[in-house]
Amino acid sequence: MAVYTDVADDELERFVARYDIGQVTSFKGIAEGVSNSNFFLQTDRDRFILTLYEARAPRSDLPFFIGLMDHLSANGLNCPRPVRDRSGEALGELSAKPAALVTFLDGVSLKRPQAIHCEEAGRALAELHAAGAGFEVKRPNPLAVSGWRPLADAAGARADRISPGLSRRIAEELSCHEAAWPTGLPSGIVHADLFPDNVFFIGGKCSGLIDFYFAAQDAFAYDLAICLNAWCFETDLSFNLTKGQALLSGYESRRRLTDAETAALPQLARGAALRFLLTRTVDFLDVPPGALVKPHDPLPYDRRLTFHRRISSAAEYGLVR
Amino acid sequence: MAVYTDVADDELERFVARYDIGQVTSFKGIAEGVSNSNFFLQTDRDRFILTLYEARAPRSDLPFFIGLMDHLSANGLNCPRPVRDRSGEALGELSAKPAALVTFLDGVSLKRPQAIHCEEAGRALAELHAAGAGFEVKRPNPLAVSGWRPLADAAGARADRISPGLSRRIAEELSCHEAAWPTGLPSGIVHADLFPDNVFFIGGKCSGLIDFYFAAQDAFAYDLAICLNAWCFETDLSFNLTKGQALLSGYESRRRLTDAETAALPQLARGAALRFLLTRTVDFLDVPPGALVKPHDPLPYDRRLTFHRRISSAAEYGLVR
Repeated sequence: MAVYTDVADDELERFVARYDIGQVTSFKGIAEGVSNSNFFLQTDRDRFILTLYEARAPRSDLPFFIGLMDHLSANGLNCPRPVRDRSGEALGELSAKPAALVTFLDGVSLKRPQAIHCEEAGRALAELHAAGAGFEVKRPNPLAVSGWRPLADAAGARADRISPGLSRRIAEELSCHEAAWPTGLPSGIVHADLFPDNVFFIGGKCSGLIDFYFAAQDAFAYDLAICLNAWCFETDLSFNLTKGQALLSGYESRRRLTDAETAALPQLARGAALRFLLTRTVDFLDVPPGALVKPHDPLPYDRRLTFHRRISSAAEYGLVR
Repeated sequence: MAVYTDVADDELERFVARYDIGQVTSFKGIAEGVSNSNFFLQTDRDRFILTLYEARAPRSDLPFFIGLMDHLSANGLNCPRPVRDRSGEALGELSAKPAALVTFLDGVSLKRPQAIHCEEAGRALAELHAAGAGFEVKRPNPLAVSGWRPLADAAGARADRISPGLSRRIAEELSCHEAAWPTGLPSGIVHADLFPDNVFFIGGKCSGLIDFYFAAQDAFAYDLAICLNAWCFETDLSFNLTKGQALLSGYESRRRLTDAETAALPQLARGAALRFLLTRTVDFLDVPPGALVKPHDPLPYDRRLTFHRRISSAAEYGLVR
């Protein structure tokens, strides 16, 4: 949630002139997204979001993300749609950084979603999984189980500075998942970061999804397991079973989980908690001095792990069979 | 340029329900303003800016600022207009902080205004001075010459940490202005902070002014002197005489400076540079550890002072007589 790059007046003017979008009437940096700079851009014709991709976004993946938004939106998902310039390009350059203009998505993200919103989010996730079908560009998930050991190594014993014993707990979890991560589950395009910040609502109804910069090919049920972690724990880190039921039934209103997915759900949820524990631990340890963005506290994911380790069936997350 | 306060979903809902503005369709923190939190708020009827006043804004002055925006806007100035709730109140509370909703002003602030924009800014400043007539609420300028010594004392010898000799230069300037600050100049409502961030443009034309949180009663020509400092120096801190001419002729296209104002302009410009040198020096020395906002570098105002000390007439700023 920051604006990292100042855009010079003449550069913005030249950038906008490449598009057939009218005259700029407003341009403001917005506190949305974590690793890129985002701007609200209004013209006399329409509203847009302009994203500048900062160093952290892998440039080689940008065509995947842009193409995916195009594909999802063409397949009926409510999400930002990349705008093409007069020469048909959706990815440009501004202030010496890759930049893209997307349509403005109405809606408000919620700080504390209720069960009704979890149901909407579950349904939207299933719709995203369906809308991703047929998208041919491949991006294996760099934060799938094979990507976790490098993160654990990067944190190493330093993790114990955050909480005593954390490096050991991470090592144990990692071994457990590397040995027995479920394979062969129904897969396709996953969002992989569908936290409440990335789901917009108007009047209690989901109006769309944003921020596809972790999207990749992976197991659908793993995406759902990420949502269980992101949507169904209270601030005191208790698991709200009503929200779990709502999320899962929202999802299943569009696509019923297979028996294999149902059986795998506890491990997927536990693995998803480890994935966020790992990235947040590394970010927390490696925060540069003077950074403008406060890193997330990793420990709530340590707490979630403790919860997941005690779960033995999807029913305990609220799945009704 | 920051959002300091997270607004809870239900609090926002309750706040908005007090107004007759329709249903919220978008709500985003924006990087605008320095000491308050600002949000873009769109409903199915209109666009607004929601401001949360953080601790730094003196609460007792808020009715002045709100009333002033009302008055200026009623008198034809393009500026945000406070929106009243159903009980007629324009100042409410949100997230335990004073909060106000104002209309959205179209336009883009410029990072590097050109001479044509300086002329527009000068004209807009004179229009603001005219529109302020008849506003009866009083707010003496806390950052007028009488407010400078406490700032110089707060910085004290620590100023030399920023630049050797700075505390002595400040002390000398201060004595000079305290001894001979011009009085009896035409006065009224001044903006007192009309930097390029606070002036919006569409297609080269000024579309309005924002951020009245330094406004007060003071000499009009002092306000113009602040603009000379803010608009007419290049990034290498050379004074651009063409921009000076444009700013002054824009101002005079609406109100001609009196002989007393003309004679006082060099000292006012020098005092204005000292005023920003002082607040930036104190902010720079007192920046709290872990602050999210980087303080402005005070030294460009030290450099401006050196320039102003060599000026002996308003003509050298570009005033044509």
